[in-house]
Amino acid sequence: MMNTFGEKYRLTTFGESHGPAIGGVIDGVPAGLPIDSERIQQELDRRRPGQSAIVTPRKESDRVRLLSGIFEGCTTGTPIGFIIENENQRSTDYEPLRDAFRPSHADYTYSAKYGIRDYRGGGRASARETAARIVGGAIARQALERLGISLFAYTSQVGDIRLDKDYTEIDPTLIESNAVRCPDAPTAERMIRLIEEVRSEGDTIGGVATCVVRGLPAGLGEPVFDKLQARLAYAMLGINAAKGFEYGMGFEGAARRGSEMNDTFVSDGSRISTRTNHSGGIQGGISNGADIYFRVAFKPVATLLRDTETVNAQGQPTLLPAKGRHDPCVLPRAVPIVEAMATMTILDMYLLNKSTRI
Amino acid sequence: MMNTFGEKYRLTTFGESHGPAIGGVIDGVPAGLPIDSERIQQELDRRRPGQSAIVTPRKESDRVRLLSGIFEGCTTGTPIGFIIENENQRSTDYEPLRDAFRPSHADYTYSAKYGIRDYRGGGRASARETAARIVGGAIARQALERLGISLFAYTSQVGDIRLDKDYTEIDPTLIESNAVRCPDAPTAERMIRLIEEVRSEGDTIGGVATCVVRGLPAGLGEPVFDKLQARLAYAMLGINAAKGFEYGMGFEGAARRGSEMNDTFVSDGSRISTRTNHSGGIQGGISNGADIYFRVAFKPVATLLRDTETVNAQGQPTLLPAKGRHDPCVLPRAVPIVEAMATMTILDMYLLNKSTRI
Amino acid sequence: MMNTFGEKYRLTTFGESHGPAIGGVIDGVPAGLPIDSERIQQELDRRRPGQSAIVTPRKESDRVRLLSGIFEGCTTGTPIGFIIENENQRSTDYEPLRDAFRPSHADYTYSAKYGIRDYRGGGRASARETAARIVGGAIARQALERLGISLFAYTSQVGDIRLDKDYTEIDPTLIESNAVRCPDAPTAERMIRLIEEVRSEGDTIGGVATCVVRGLPAGLGEPVFDKLQARLAYAMLGINAAKGFEYGMGFEGAARRGSEMNDTFVSDGSRISTRTNHSGGIQGGISNGADIYFRVAFKPVATLLRDTETVNAQGQPTLLPAKGRHDPCVLPRAVPIVEAMATMTILDMYLLNKSTRI
Amino acid sequence: MMNTFGEKYRLTTFGESHGPAIGGVIDGVPAGLPIDSERIQQELDRRRPGQSAIVTPRKESDRVRLLSGIFEGCTTGTPIGFIIENENQRSTDYEPLRDAFRPSHADYTYSAKYGIRDYRGGGRASARETAARIVGGAIARQALERLGISLFAYTSQVGDIRLDKDYTEIDPTLIESNAVRCPDAPTAERMIRLIEEVRSEGDTIGGVATCVVRGLPAGLGEPVFDKLQARLAYAMLGINAAKGFEYGMGFEGAARRGSEMNDTFVSDGSRISTRTNHSGGIQGGISNGADIYFRVAFKPVATLLRDTETVNAQGQPTLLPAKGRHDPCVLPRAVPIVEAMATMTILDMYLLNKSTRI
Repeated sequence: MMNTFGEKYRLTTFGESHGPAIGGVIDGVPAGLPIDSERIQQELDRRRPGQSAIVTPRKESDRVRLLSGIFEGCTTGTPIGFIIENENQRSTDYEPLRDAFRPSHADYTYSAKYGIRDYRGGGRASARETAARIVGGAIARQALERLGISLFAYTSQVGDIRLDKDYTEIDPTLIESNAVRCPDAPTAERMIRLIEEVRSEGDTIGGVATCVVRGLPAGLGEPVFDKLQARLAYAMLGINAAKGFEYGMGFEGAARRGSEMNDTFVSDGSRISTRTNHSGGIQGGISNGADIYFRVAFKPVATLLRDTETVNAQGQPTLLPAKGRHDPCVLPRAVPIVEAMATMTILDMYLLNKSTRI
Repeated sequence: MMNTFGEKYRLTTFGESHGPAIGGVIDGVPAGLPIDSERIQQELDRRRPGQSAIVTPRKESDRVRLLSGIFEGCTTGTPIGFIIENENQRSTDYEPLRDAFRPSHADYTYSAKYGIRDYRGGGRASARETAARIVGGAIARQALERLGISLFAYTSQVGDIRLDKDYTEIDPTLIESNAVRCPDAPTAERMIRLIEEVRSEGDTIGGVATCVVRGLPAGLGEPVFDKLQARLAYAMLGINAAKGFEYGMGFEGAARRGSEMNDTFVSDGSRISTRTNHSGGIQGGISNGADIYFRVAFKPVATLLRDTETVNAQGQPTLLPAKGRHDPCVLPRAVPIVEAMATMTILDMYLLNKSTRI
Repeated sequence: MMNTFGEKYRLTTFGESHGPAIGGVIDGVPAGLPIDSERIQQELDRRRPGQSAIVTPRKESDRVRLLSGIFEGCTTGTPIGFIIENENQRSTDYEPLRDAFRPSHADYTYSAKYGIRDYRGGGRASARETAARIVGGAIARQALERLGISLFAYTSQVGDIRLDKDYTEIDPTLIESNAVRCPDAPTAERMIRLIEEVRSEGDTIGGVATCVVRGLPAGLGEPVFDKLQARLAYAMLGINAAKGFEYGMGFEGAARRGSEMNDTFVSDGSRISTRTNHSGGIQGGISNGADIYFRVAFKPVATLLRDTETVNAQGQPTLLPAKGRHDPCVLPRAVPIVEAMATMTILDMYLLNKSTRI
Repeated sequence: MMNTFGEKYRLTTFGESHGPAIGGVIDGVPAGLPIDSERIQQELDRRRPGQSAIVTPRKESDRVRLLSGIFEGCTTGTPIGFIIENENQRSTDYEPLRDAFRPSHADYTYSAKYGIRDYRGGGRASARETAARIVGGAIARQALERLGISLFAYTSQVGDIRLDKDYTEIDPTLIESNAVRCPDAPTAERMIRLIEEVRSEGDTIGGVATCVVRGLPAGLGEPVFDKLQARLAYAMLGINAAKGFEYGMGFEGAARRGSEMNDTFVSDGSRISTRTNHSGGIQGGISNGADIYFRVAFKPVATLLRDTETVNAQGQPTLLPAKGRHDPCVLPRAVPIVEAMATMTILDMYLLNKSTRI
């Protein structure tokens, strides 16, 4: 479905980084939901460039303008259109890219696919497009909260620095307490130092985000192709620079035995639950009421602050000069995007499930 | 879309393991494609229970009957309906499950979702459903071959035994030379011994499959949500027991620097390619013409040959007796399913891309 | 979506008239619905050839075999696969059509589209495909009944013989009392005589079916593109030989003034309704709780019992000899198909609406 | 799919008549298409209120702002987002409607569906939403022109005044020569007089639009549910106030015999065509290369310039005072909307068909 995400709660996005504006339309928003617009802007500010010392210094104010679908503070069930005007564009920065392909960027593949591309700032492939996803996620979050469902993500790895704590051991209220969005102060400090070191070398570094969903009722997810984990994996691998997804025990579970991994059912008389949660809250593609947790791997940003060899559209070697204002590590700004994509996925699955019985 | 997979090349499946038959409908098959029916059956035989000493000894002949869409040996562009009759069902085996929830199975979550379930043999959650996917994949493969695209998967890890070779170093013609589908004889032997050992203890073990696509032209994949990797991740996490997906450098790349990971473009005068392939053949969500490779983690099978504590629908503790004819490790039979899902995904993306220009 | 109908309640059909079988998959069936299989067969018998003197004398028993999705007499929420074996095929009848295009049939357009076609009995374009729709409709009807929604269609015109009664004036229990399915005995008799006369001349005749939905709650239908009438029109024009659709006052309303046409709202204290129903139960694309009624025009069957001039694939003139066992008028057998398509549409819109609010 | 129209060429619209702006996103636009923005504006001006003496005197400039997807005058294959700011809103006009339901409007049904509605100017149900469709159609038209496909619509009936000429007998260049968009001067004059008369009585009147597609290749349309006529019917019944659709001989054909209606195939040696075109250019749901023609019935506008009895949300009788600036007849402004919806449908079917063969 190209530029549309979701089936019942559907976000369609548009916009290039150097066009007049980006934006989107959210369709399928349940009617009668009070919306706090200020919280939408706050979520955008978490993704915004220039918010801290370890992200790109570009200045984009990212003010969202909601154009429809909300009346007297409430959703009406009609689509919410919105735009975010582009500003602080330095298109001339990109003139050398008109004809050259940056390594590990989308320049070459866009040309191959479309035969034409807006080379300025990555055009449609720019991470700027994710601002529209933040808006979609921020509204979905307000719906989920009314359903008692909460969701948070955090940076659990930067380079080879790993947070050595399980998701159950961290305090989510600390996520926003530092620039790298790792809820463990000493680890966060080490991550930040690594990012600064990498940047000073004109280099970049990858990392991992962990996401947790709480309060989801049992029964969400469709059993065959639209397993809850399949939808989450699709959502996550649709984020720029994401290279991997695992949930529950994930790749580590591949090395384990069934006798170690099975989650025994127990009951307290009123509610059935599991003694452990190696399954990550999903069994047979359907939520079982336990916490859902998953991890998303991000590669290092492709744009380095170094002169770069490449070829142009004619196949001739060319040198791209070191330039630009890029993130040394996507993780700090990827965290709110992971949350937005997961939030929209969960709400979509919730709405899809409403027609399971009549 | 529940039980339908794909957008242009669409497989819809139906059937429970203990109903009269399973089957499906494949829509969007390009017209005029010669079909070798015998090869469809051969693919089914690779997934079939009872094919070797390290898989479940259940006897299912899995004969597919094609009902439409093929005329005088060629596809007509109309949907291909097919059924595979169920046989060798021992429904009485499952009587104790009528009311009890097997740990880490779909029993509890299906009950929570639907309020009713066919408890015999896992019902719709049974891996038997994947036979229909094999049919969809086998026909897609014949289309891809005409386009010069090839695809293979193999077992690259069982428990803690890892194949220590890159995908470029293995010989895909050896995949079918042993029961575990690992194209390296000594590693395959160790994997098989581990599976046998685990089984003798009534236990099960997880593993990893690696999949490679060759000959894909540059330009496939949609840039935002329907990135090629997002569609592949969705396809893979829709396979029973899959717990993780990574492509290119994947999770390992999260620990790396950009300067190590970027794939430099080079040209031989006629064709642009990359010197390395850390990207896994995809940049900005779109194929770049290099090999695509990805890995899928599978958890150990949940059914152990041991008495198992659990609860029933009333929340009362109950003991499930050791019984059943299950796989000690899904990998050998997961390999053809990974191939089928990837094949359908690639063909779908190929067809989707046909309307990019007029 | 090609061979799939519906969004939440989805029927996918397959099969050619002269292949081994036709069939389909119904996905999105609400769970926990008791199903009376005998009633499905009864609906099929209403569409079946050979049921009366004024339809084609072909003998097809049209026995449906349900393969999945129903357990102990109840729907499980998993897809219902089904097949109807083909029989009584006289493929040799069609040998002259291998290379010739019957006028006003799909022969030429299928060849133009696909470059290949199953010429026997119309192949996929055969009205036989509609048997699968009947199955989809028969199961949907059992769901609608539990919701208090009823639906019937009848023949309201054959050639120039029109039933001069409003839908509110007829007795739906009389629809099945005659072969033409017109609930007014004297009119039905005249219609039957006309059909017999036309047939004796080797000719065919068109007509109109009227359909009525009762008990639909207010609020179904989506406001912009998926207006309830848009979905109904789509469903009806997807029936072979349908040439027109109108609802409420339809084309006649085009000649009227607003002051004659508006439906005044009234209230009895507990429920708001309208004094008249020129709107046909839909306002702004959404049901208002009044009866929905619409009419569908069908052209005369294209196959005449006369020698027919045409051209072959090489553009050379050729003569098709009078032959075949065709309906002189589609209306009697179109009535259950109109009902099936309308039933599925209404249930789909009902299910879609379930996520309007949380 | 709620507020999205089309499968490959997809328009998603948003916006209420009295919110800040309306707009939309067009996805699936083929890449590399030169776009003349001025022509988009010209199409909008044809739909604009206040363009002539027989339409609503509201003043809306309807300036479209294209925000993305076009680079250096060409489509890039990425989505085209656009907005049209609202202006000249007199929301206080609508205060009496906050709680009262206008007869034959969407007020009551929106309230029933969503439990909340923007009562000002019809909110989302306002015909203002169709401006976004015009933009989608205007871009599609530029694509169709490159494919040699042309399309026009005109007013063929107002009240009981019918244009007594076949579509083959009119001159499409005359459509824009008068305010009612009827390409026959004397008939147009009578239509205009009728509209003026009706308006002077505070009343409104219905009518019919005819639409013709030329140059379509044989082979477009999908054979079962997505017949070309089914998609056109869906598109047309999705227009506000549309009550009926017929193509080819339509309802009139229901009264005819097969021997009168069949279109005999002929060949001039190089191309197969039909001697007559009763089929309306479509056979078996697929275009046959002949002209496509169809008719759409529109009811009289529901808003009269008269005091109107109705009830409020509490079911109490209330009187709505005569007021507002409404069209006495939708036809003049419906013509460009019919064209836009048909244009998008045809382009969508063209793009869908591209994957029929590989």
